[in-house]
Amino acid sequence: VRVALLAGGTGGTKLAHGFAQVLPGDDLAVIVNVGDDLELHGLHVSPDVDALLYTLGGLIDTERGWGLRGDTFTAHAMLERYGAPSWFRLGDADLATHIHRTHLMRAGATLTEATAAMASTLGIGARVLPATDDPVRTRVETDAGVLDFQDYFVRLRHEPEVRGVQLAGLETARASASAVEAIAAADLVVIGPSNPVVSIGPILALPELRAAVEASSAVRVAVSPIVAGAALKGPADRMLRSLGHEATALGVAKMYAGLVHRFVLDDADADLARDVAALGMEADVLPTVMRTEADRAALARAVMEVSRPA
Amino acid sequence: VRVALLAGGTGGTKLAHGFAQVLPGDDLAVIVNVGDDLELHGLHVSPDVDALLYTLGGLIDTERGWGLRGDTFTAHAMLERYGAPSWFRLGDADLATHIHRTHLMRAGATLTEATAAMASTLGIGARVLPATDDPVRTRVETDAGVLDFQDYFVRLRHEPEVRGVQLAGLETARASASAVEAIAAADLVVIGPSNPVVSIGPILALPELRAAVEASSAVRVAVSPIVAGAALKGPADRMLRSLGHEATALGVAKMYAGLVHRFVLDDADADLARDVAALGMEADVLPTVMRTEADRAALARAVMEVSRPA
Repeated sequence: VRVALLAGGTGGTKLAHGFAQVLPGDDLAVIVNVGDDLELHGLHVSPDVDALLYTLGGLIDTERGWGLRGDTFTAHAMLERYGAPSWFRLGDADLATHIHRTHLMRAGATLTEATAAMASTLGIGARVLPATDDPVRTRVETDAGVLDFQDYFVRLRHEPEVRGVQLAGLETARASASAVEAIAAADLVVIGPSNPVVSIGPILALPELRAAVEASSAVRVAVSPIVAGAALKGPADRMLRSLGHEATALGVAKMYAGLVHRFVLDDADADLARDVAALGMEADVLPTVMRTEADRAALARAVMEVSRPA
Repeated sequence: VRVALLAGGTGGTKLAHGFAQVLPGDDLAVIVNVGDDLELHGLHVSPDVDALLYTLGGLIDTERGWGLRGDTFTAHAMLERYGAPSWFRLGDADLATHIHRTHLMRAGATLTEATAAMASTLGIGARVLPATDDPVRTRVETDAGVLDFQDYFVRLRHEPEVRGVQLAGLETARASASAVEAIAAADLVVIGPSNPVVSIGPILALPELRAAVEASSAVRVAVSPIVAGAALKGPADRMLRSLGHEATALGVAKMYAGLVHRFVLDDADADLARDVAALGMEADVLPTVMRTEADRAALARAVMEVSRPA
């Protein structure tokens, strides 16, 4: 089974790790959000891509949920001393990633090529595919003004209410050809349990990419990032509400109606299954909360199981 | 007394620190070699400038003689993992310097401006002035071929015999206006105890800079980097020999004949004083070996003392 997973953020990354545990490397393509990318200290930082590289490469700091296990923060302290912005705290090994990627890209590599080279040196078999090589940047309209995504997310700890989302650069951006091909070649297209607005949204906003999903003959399934009316991590629930959606699995299912054949809800939301089914998709009730690495693999297997063509 | 010190490498840096201990900040300008600069991981690395920043800022690792005290090497290990060149080992705080400088320069700052900004945040009063803002790069002709300076110096541990020295980019390079002005404004111009070929050579090779030294009405004094026929550190003695000079204080004095009024020899070389004087300069015999920070200040004071106009 060839799987193409759309992902960004913690939930999508965990599910990607689940699929990576149960599929041979080449059968998994993860199409990653780059709307969160930023330039920091002159370096290209791709938080969602890096979370995937570190997780699939077995390097992630599982306690903290970001960055590399055992990383040090010596450079950060020195950058702070030089008066450089310090609200985005980068570990030293993490900086090495940004330095190396930026170096490859300044030498002419696309983000896709740089990511592939780095994934390969980290021993990652799955293809980690940025949704686009062009700069599409998520900006959020808030009561505190229009903010760059990381400004909102990290510096302001996603406290301001989000009133709207803009994708700067979208008009001229092309979807990654590798990502489009991976979707076309997939037997199963999975929308991971990621924030539908700021993680999946910037991926599906790329017309060629959305068209590839819609044209795909694969089974298409989405996994709810909302469990029992709350995001497991991050501001997805509040963001859905302030943008006029329902902050429930059903609310997310409505956003994907017409795009996916199946929708996976958590056991805790079994009572919503009927309403989801009424949207014209199969509702699959599964344990979706991934506490352990085994949970991730189990959810990946279960998603493949329910999606198997009859 | 306004002092302009030409420096590069360990000896010159130590003497700069001596002057910084005995002069008010603004009265000291250190004109620094940039022939050793290199681009590494896409970052602009200025080893001689950094040695000065770290030494004058009180951050240098005095045990090792380079880099920052207490630095970690986490990023280096990760860069190595990515397959980046690893023969030039950069600490994490050191990387922060290169990241910050490169960022400032890509935003339009000259090396002089970036250095000034960084020196200021490190609380350094003396002016640290790169000899030029243009890329002049030292290449050494050796039995192993023509090598970039750090390739010769660090990667090959200055083992190959040096047959000649090239300064790539010299034809189109302009001396730093700040450096030229500092020399013109100085009461005392000191050529530090640095390698005359690859530390002082690339500074004086800049025509406007050499002309400024020659036109200066200041007392001009050089301090020998060779003591008892040997360099205290580095390959200066071997390099002098293989390039056809004498590897003695007298040999160095001959290289500066006509340019300086005075030449400082170490106590160990007192027997050469008469031959130095015969070159048409005053020979000053002083303890020049700087083992402690107090030694540095003492040598700076002694150089000012002997150079005081009668």
